[in-house]
Amino acid sequence: MITNKKSILRLSKYKKALTRLHSMGFKKVFSDNLADAIGVTPSQVRKDFSIFDLSGHKKGGYLIDDLIHKINKILGKEEVEKVIIVGCGNIGTALMRYNGFEKEFIKVVAAFDSNPAKINPNAQIPIFPMEELFDFIVKEKIRTAILAVPDQAAQNVVDTLVNAGVKGVLNFSPLYLRVPEDFIISNVNLEVELEGVIYFVNAMPKSSEKDSTEENNE
Amino acid sequence: MITNKKSILRLSKYKKALTRLHSMGFKKVFSDNLADAIGVTPSQVRKDFSIFDLSGHKKGGYLIDDLIHKINKILGKEEVEKVIIVGCGNIGTALMRYNGFEKEFIKVVAAFDSNPAKINPNAQIPIFPMEELFDFIVKEKIRTAILAVPDQAAQNVVDTLVNAGVKGVLNFSPLYLRVPEDFIISNVNLEVELEGVIYFVNAMPKSSEKDSTEENNE
Repeated sequence: MITNKKSILRLSKYKKALTRLHSMGFKKVFSDNLADAIGVTPSQVRKDFSIFDLSGHKKGGYLIDDLIHKINKILGKEEVEKVIIVGCGNIGTALMRYNGFEKEFIKVVAAFDSNPAKINPNAQIPIFPMEELFDFIVKEKIRTAILAVPDQAAQNVVDTLVNAGVKGVLNFSPLYLRVPEDFIISNVNLEVELEGVIYFVNAMPKSSEKDSTEENNE
Repeated sequence: MITNKKSILRLSKYKKALTRLHSMGFKKVFSDNLADAIGVTPSQVRKDFSIFDLSGHKKGGYLIDDLIHKINKILGKEEVEKVIIVGCGNIGTALMRYNGFEKEFIKVVAAFDSNPAKINPNAQIPIFPMEELFDFIVKEKIRTAILAVPDQAAQNVVDTLVNAGVKGVLNFSPLYLRVPEDFIISNVNLEVELEGVIYFVNAMPKSSEKDSTEENNE
């Protein structure tokens, strides 16, 4: 694993910008366009592209089709990745309905909940009881999960995921979860993020003094 | 603004751990406990605490009540912060129902949508048409917003927010948004985060070779 997370996340953002440009009928793009689109410097774009061996014609820019294809290949988007959602509360349910994933070759194949009232094996995305989680992961060879269970359940659930063979999760629980060293966790903590915004909003000078916050828009 | 975003986000996480400990009946906590709870080193905890002047009795640990009170004060949680949600799709609607915010002295006071079918001024959290967004912000002196509109609408909406006096947003749109230098944006990009997890899961060596990923669980 020679690459770092930030470059990968940017790669994913470049792809989104490229897909949008493509749908608008554009054929070519320059590093300056991509820099504008995702809010980095053109030299950062070129640096990221050189890390992943994405070459273009320096003066002629990059062919959009070609770039999308190459980035998909790097991101392992040659085939659809099956993902499960564990926890069908507000966030889990929103993610089941979210159509942003499908565009990205991500398919939510099932969801799990401990509340019997929520079980629905015949829904478009079937919802199974928690007791079936382990066997489902093993049988379907699931490697990636979205964890949206209440705090107090999170560690137990992640232990089950690990034992069943999941390798990485997108985690919405605010708790720090204990996982093996080579397990991938990406934490999305909405309260913490929103509190951060509020803190900085309140810390802002009332006058319009300039103040450079590096992490303003990253 | 002398502090950086990461320390503030950690402060918010410490508070969550403290609140949990408090509800379990604990009175005191040590930097080692907090380090375990949020997954950093004890020296990081002490460093963060010294940035914010959070003192304790070195050997005796910290009083939990006292720490929560002090952290709330730092995070500006002396009074309730009024927040609006713009965009009532899947994510916006989930956040309207989300009860994690209220615990944090954050009150979602209204939501806005461009779809007339969604308007409901009498709901618990009223949903108003987009045309009323500007005036509502001015009248209610709203400073913080959650932006959950479709990509193509995001820049226009954020322009309205800025012009009406909002100072910071939690943004769920994957687009890079152009805002004034002193405007706070915290981006939550679910597709990008999930793609990152999938990339690293797929990049993982099939054997169990150890591989240190600094950003594994941050």
